[in-house]
Amino acid sequence: MVSLKDALTLVLEHAFPLEAERVFLPDSLGRVTAAPVLAPMNVPPFERSPLDGYAVRAEDTFAASPEQPVTLAVLAKTKGKSIYVKSGTCIRILTGDPFPRGADAVVPQEKVLRVGNLLFLHNPLPPEANVASAGEDIRRGTTVVEKGTLIEAIHIGIFSSLGLQRVDVFKKPRVAVLATGSELKPCGERLSFGQIYDCNTPMLCALISECAAVPNPFGIVGDSTEALACSLEKALEQSDLVISTGGVSVGDDDLVAGAIKKIGAHILFWRVAMKPGTPALAAVKNKKLFFCLPGNPAAAYVSFEQLVRPCLLAKVSLKNWQRPEISALLEHSIPAAGSQNRFMRAICSLGKEGFTVRSAGLERSGVLSSFRDANALICLPAGTPALEAGEKVTVRLLSLPRQQEVLAPHSLSGLTLSCGTGTF
Amino acid sequence: MVSLKDALTLVLEHAFPLEAERVFLPDSLGRVTAAPVLAPMNVPPFERSPLDGYAVRAEDTFAASPEQPVTLAVLAKTKGKSIYVKSGTCIRILTGDPFPRGADAVVPQEKVLRVGNLLFLHNPLPPEANVASAGEDIRRGTTVVEKGTLIEAIHIGIFSSLGLQRVDVFKKPRVAVLATGSELKPCGERLSFGQIYDCNTPMLCALISECAAVPNPFGIVGDSTEALACSLEKALEQSDLVISTGGVSVGDDDLVAGAIKKIGAHILFWRVAMKPGTPALAAVKNKKLFFCLPGNPAAAYVSFEQLVRPCLLAKVSLKNWQRPEISALLEHSIPAAGSQNRFMRAICSLGKEGFTVRSAGLERSGVLSSFRDANALICLPAGTPALEAGEKVTVRLLSLPRQQEVLAPHSLSGLTLSCGTGTF
Repeated sequence: MVSLKDALTLVLEHAFPLEAERVFLPDSLGRVTAAPVLAPMNVPPFERSPLDGYAVRAEDTFAASPEQPVTLAVLAKTKGKSIYVKSGTCIRILTGDPFPRGADAVVPQEKVLRVGNLLFLHNPLPPEANVASAGEDIRRGTTVVEKGTLIEAIHIGIFSSLGLQRVDVFKKPRVAVLATGSELKPCGERLSFGQIYDCNTPMLCALISECAAVPNPFGIVGDSTEALACSLEKALEQSDLVISTGGVSVGDDDLVAGAIKKIGAHILFWRVAMKPGTPALAAVKNKKLFFCLPGNPAAAYVSFEQLVRPCLLAKVSLKNWQRPEISALLEHSIPAAGSQNRFMRAICSLGKEGFTVRSAGLERSGVLSSFRDANALICLPAGTPALEAGEKVTVRLLSLPRQQEVLAPHSLSGLTLSCGTGTF
Repeated sequence: MVSLKDALTLVLEHAFPLEAERVFLPDSLGRVTAAPVLAPMNVPPFERSPLDGYAVRAEDTFAASPEQPVTLAVLAKTKGKSIYVKSGTCIRILTGDPFPRGADAVVPQEKVLRVGNLLFLHNPLPPEANVASAGEDIRRGTTVVEKGTLIEAIHIGIFSSLGLQRVDVFKKPRVAVLATGSELKPCGERLSFGQIYDCNTPMLCALISECAAVPNPFGIVGDSTEALACSLEKALEQSDLVISTGGVSVGDDDLVAGAIKKIGAHILFWRVAMKPGTPALAAVKNKKLFFCLPGNPAAAYVSFEQLVRPCLLAKVSLKNWQRPEISALLEHSIPAAGSQNRFMRAICSLGKEGFTVRSAGLERSGVLSSFRDANALICLPAGTPALEAGEKVTVRLLSLPRQQEVLAPHSLSGLTLSCGTGTF
């Protein structure tokens, strides 16, 4: 049995990054940049006004005072003709308009009095007042996004402001998923006595999609070393990574290790010191990884989270793939961890005293439904003794923590307040 | 000018939920349930063993002791034939196997000695020891997921364990996006002097996708009331909701309000007490909402976040759509908020002392790039005075906070530790 840390190190060593491909911006959402993105131009490309007003020469305004306003002649705008603001004149300018030659400041429209073509200014302006310089937002040549960045809406906005149409991203890993066990039936078929539905394949396909990878479901393979070896080999050919569930514990029907050996894959480890998920096996062939996860769905979920997700994100070189770990106060006592790292499905809340955490329900490996409300895992190192309510534990956040105490609605006049988990 | 709270109340009143549709499970990821999902069966459907061992009658073991082991005869398994465990016998049972009649407990294989067909037990077992009852995971008839739940991988696992093939979800809102401004060019075209690229349309389309809605980009419409009215009307016909950017401030070219009136839409408000985003306008026609957002990209981003996102999520009846708001310590001083609610793009970190927050960069409405690193908005109510470093502010989390201090690698023997923002 290997430690979880060693298991993760071993599989990450074999999680080679994929090639890059160039995609159009709308298709890049949720992908990871394969190279730094440099600004090919200034944004804005020219000096412009950040507000509606009048472009003036600051020196013309120096003598202005509430008692002795300065008067300037408003120049007429001529479509398509560039204008020069000479001393004693000004010109109407709107938000985003390029700055006219001669002018070096903008007076906001609400600060002046206009009568016909005459503008009265009651206060002096310093040079460069209300001028947005070229490159104020992004300077040409700067790195706007580093390699290994997850592309979100804001990045697409930034790339568009630079006129970029396409961006280099890592290819999506293709991940084969197969389930073993003669007791399994796919959804839609009728169960005989002793049979259950295969929930691992649909769940893993969804987890793979959530990692910006492409699931490739292979369905259910019976309990035969021959059939399994054949399916694993075919899955390997068609995919960048292979996941199986079931058949890795030490019972009579546990044939996966045999099938893995039969196809000549090299076993990196079998059995990891974590609960749930102990029976997990990893192997490698042709520089591709096999993850043979336990068949109990909660164990499959936790071992995917601990071992497979990091590798999928490593294959697209994502920076900062780790989930945040925080310290939280236990809302109730919990039993000792035992001799392995233990991960408890948990609900983490954010109250006035900081983070608190409680069990999300029944801990058995065969029980998946208690993960429904979980937004965190309590991480208990091997040997952790029984803990009392109020003691501190390390919690890995799977999504945003819930807000326990909603602030009084009027404590923030006019602002809407929030509770609950924001997932979007 | 309306308060942000009133503006949000007004638009939410007009954000009618969409109809439902039935989709296959793999297509339901990221959608929102349109009805409660009830369990049509027990999971597991039968009493089963949670481990590898031997099924016994507990009463047979009562006399067992380390000195005086009990001996049981191991029954042979016959394929397809049901077995009755009578007194003095037992049968091999594997994880997940249905419980044989007669037996009422399982002894783990590591706790017994087997010699040929004889099993030696050195300890008594209580009845029901190591038995997973039918319905232990999910009981038939219970509500496994409520209406208005965002479907994630774990839900797909739960639905599959119940044999469900399809699920009722709300239709995705179709959202038209158009940009106004004769200075705008789409990416890929060459800019003339005074022109800039339209970054709002691609950014809003991505934000819409992130809300599980379908963007319908209409491109750039010139500065003409006629052309705008025509495009807005066409956009309305083809979509459930329409967003435009630009043309809503009070400059000479601000024609959107005119076009909105021309097509007979009812204006709900024009100008909201928030910065950035003040010029936002909302209108309604044929029970559909128009959001006319400012053209400055940072203002478009913030007004989408404040007004449009809540409506898109209301149209699919998502529970808990609000983002969590937390209290954080300022890492530096900030200026007074002014007379409107102010939202500052910010970086929220999680350290030993709890949450801290700092500005993500330049605050101008025309500057988008400083949102790149933002994971939060500092929410300053109107009238908030200048604040010093160390003072508390309310922060709305847009994604998971960053981890400031990484725990020492060995403080959690064998566990991997995390830093950075986990987005997957």
